Amino acid sequence: MKFPWEDLVPREEQELYRAAGFGKKLGVGKRPALLIIDVQYRTVGHKPQPIKEAIAEYATSCGEYGWRAVANIRKLLGVFREKRLPVIYPHVALKNQANGGRFADKVPNVMTVPEKGYAFVKDIEPQPGEILLPKNHPSAFFGTPLTSYLIDQGVDSLVVTGCTTSGCVRGTVVDAFSYNFRAMVPFECVYDRSQSSHAVNLFDIASKYGDVVSTDEAVRLIAAL
Amino acid sequence: MKFPWEDLVPREEQELYRAAGFGKKLGVGKRPALLIIDVQYRTVGHKPQPIKEAIAEYATSCGEYGWRAVANIRKLLGVFREKRLPVIYPHVALKNQANGGRFADKVPNVMTVPEKGYAFVKDIEPQPGEILLPKNHPSAFFGTPLTSYLIDQGVDSLVVTGCTTSGCVRGTVVDAFSYNFRAMVPFECVYDRSQSSHAVNLFDIASKYGDVVSTDEAVRLIAAL
Amino acid sequence: MKFPWEDLVPREEQELYRAAGFGKKLGVGKRPALLIIDVQYRTVGHKPQPIKEAIAEYATSCGEYGWRAVANIRKLLGVFREKRLPVIYPHVALKNQANGGRFADKVPNVMTVPEKGYAFVKDIEPQPGEILLPKNHPSAFFGTPLTSYLIDQGVDSLVVTGCTTSGCVRGTVVDAFSYNFRAMVPFECVYDRSQSSHAVNLFDIASKYGDVVSTDEAVRLIAAL
Amino acid sequence: MKFPWEDLVPREEQELYRAAGFGKKLGVGKRPALLIIDVQYRTVGHKPQPIKEAIAEYATSCGEYGWRAVANIRKLLGVFREKRLPVIYPHVALKNQANGGRFADKVPNVMTVPEKGYAFVKDIEPQPGEILLPKNHPSAFFGTPLTSYLIDQGVDSLVVTGCTTSGCVRGTVVDAFSYNFRAMVPFECVYDRSQSSHAVNLFDIASKYGDVVSTDEAVRLIAAL
Repeated sequence: MKFPWEDLVPREEQELYRAAGFGKKLGVGKRPALLIIDVQYRTVGHKPQPIKEAIAEYATSCGEYGWRAVANIRKLLGVFREKRLPVIYPHVALKNQANGGRFADKVPNVMTVPEKGYAFVKDIEPQPGEILLPKNHPSAFFGTPLTSYLIDQGVDSLVVTGCTTSGCVRGTVVDAFSYNFRAMVPFECVYDRSQSSHAVNLFDIASKYGDVVSTDEAVRLIAAL
Repeated sequence: MKFPWEDLVPREEQELYRAAGFGKKLGVGKRPALLIIDVQYRTVGHKPQPIKEAIAEYATSCGEYGWRAVANIRKLLGVFREKRLPVIYPHVALKNQANGGRFADKVPNVMTVPEKGYAFVKDIEPQPGEILLPKNHPSAFFGTPLTSYLIDQGVDSLVVTGCTTSGCVRGTVVDAFSYNFRAMVPFECVYDRSQSSHAVNLFDIASKYGDVVSTDEAVRLIAAL
Repeated sequence: MKFPWEDLVPREEQELYRAAGFGKKLGVGKRPALLIIDVQYRTVGHKPQPIKEAIAEYATSCGEYGWRAVANIRKLLGVFREKRLPVIYPHVALKNQANGGRFADKVPNVMTVPEKGYAFVKDIEPQPGEILLPKNHPSAFFGTPLTSYLIDQGVDSLVVTGCTTSGCVRGTVVDAFSYNFRAMVPFECVYDRSQSSHAVNLFDIASKYGDVVSTDEAVRLIAAL
Repeated sequence: MKFPWEDLVPREEQELYRAAGFGKKLGVGKRPALLIIDVQYRTVGHKPQPIKEAIAEYATSCGEYGWRAVANIRKLLGVFREKRLPVIYPHVALKNQANGGRFADKVPNVMTVPEKGYAFVKDIEPQPGEILLPKNHPSAFFGTPLTSYLIDQGVDSLVVTGCTTSGCVRGTVVDAFSYNFRAMVPFECVYDRSQSSHAVNLFDIASKYGDVVSTDEAVRLIAAL
């Protein structure tokens, strides 16, 4: 197995991080929750397409990169449901005049995604009893009751999936790390529009904030709990 | 002028972001504050050295990358002081048994930096009346009273400098964005250990969270307020 | 005019606070927002009734105490709308298995309020463009994007109305104070089930966290902006 | 045993709360931490005195009410230390020009307490390894890394002591409740300047946010863990 950043971050820099002692493993914790972030049609489109075409449907789409991840998230979701571990869906709340803020300034197209784009992708949509967490900002923790949910449910660790790697996934992992939850990112379960940004953000996470693993390893670790 | 990511993020991906409408400018706001994050000897060493040697002094050092930024921050700091705009020093609080948390697990070497490494770099050290903000986590907002300070002082925007680009700078900019403050990053005033991670994090910021500008442009914009 | 606590908090204690220098005035700020907290049928019932009867309809009802406040809030709301100042409705989100937490343990009856109880009281219901802010916890700031809204809209002060004085109003005022927003509570616009708790919480607020004024004074102050 | 509010909140109101189903018990949790809030000389004075005289020494003093609580906190602290459960000292950080904010406006005297007033009361001062948590605002959670500490240490509940009942204790309990930690307040271990406000705030806590118990019961519950 190869990590997405191996051919992108110069070998010399990777060695520097190792020499300085970055990137130790956190492990999985005793009671992880699964976060499925922003897997709404607005980030994948209504069918798999190359991203260049996909952004014509939704400017926020990651196209087929997203659909590939959906298939992997599905596997992981199955194990979490079997184990009756918490499954949480942080997702972009319908944008309106009031909640645009700096996001509307920076990426005006986020404001014009039609309402059907906000629907959850059917293949991995929430089941009754799973937690829906609307949000306005990148991190699933910011301006939401996520911390309270996790404390209530005795959660000590998170498996973070969805999109984008360099946006809401990254922001959520950094906040999880700051709250002292253990975070794990199965790299085939997260997606982004830029593959270089995707890779480097995974490198940052693996070096400083959480564990980056394959889907298979994540499935194995959760199944073994 | 060339942005650090221009030769690193594939041209095709940069075009994709433009086509999707990412990366609009926020502008500077009416009352910016300057954040100088973690410019302590632990991140630059006691004298400029190539990073490979620098990490032998402090595992957390960015070596001469840091010293180059210090000279640029100094220019910017001069303008903020002249204009009597708020200057804030978020900085790593002395690590101890109690505040290590996941950071201690992930990068054990952060726990053994000797106390003298926590001193502010003299060239740009705080003056009386400037705000010291000790923190345990990447973002200067997390677990600190920064938001309250900014609201009290009527600040609407931040100029973010210091280190690391992919760590505390990135985390702080994302939180500033989420709180709806305008954030600006003069790219020669921030530093990191990996130059690829530095560049890609600046690309992420410029695309989604804040304005990335040269030191000269930042100086000009603040001087014009 | 007499404050609700004047006959309840011993004169000696009131003097003690004055002697120690508590209770100075904050004033109204330049751009206040109006918060109308939890004015849903679940807190007033579908018609005015003495509270003893009202709790048979909804255990969470304050009965006619609430209806009296609604009439006063209406006056204030009119001025805010005329002035085109922000109006925000923090309100209790529909309780479910996932968001009960300690509240469900402490007051189990909050979990069984029927859905129609969550509707806004028609006399002062939100208009298009006004901000709806669902919440699970007492303070309108906790686990919500309220701070981001206020910063985005350049708000520097809050006029806090609704219920309960000793619950969500108190919690919101303390957080507003902590964020360094100026808070003002028009005492006839807030309500509670216990009149002694109502009065003492207003005393606490007036002494330490915000300004307590009559509805008339609040109307006058806002109209004069 | 009698609760402080029993003779102060009208019997009729107490019955109303019971009828509506308020005030159920939370219990102690599996791993409580002890919070000792603001037990610094600035809140009790350097020797026990009636409060009227005490405020001449420090405007923020609660005088002999505080000293009585100190003796009770000491008992509880002994049990926590024996059991090696976490002990945390949230305390008022030295006030300066930058951190006064609305507090300085509302109670200007807080700004002029001399530095020696900030020292911890010797009888229950922190031991090495116990956590010091400087704060600017009422709640021990606000603008501090307390939540991160508690998650790191696997804490699920808090025993809250110190002062003032209607200020930092109340604010901390409401935030603990909002984060879904179980909170317990041994009423003889908390103190305030107004005895009516003290009593009513304990009534609010017992009704809605946490368990109010005697020191003896708290000691017994912790010792039994």
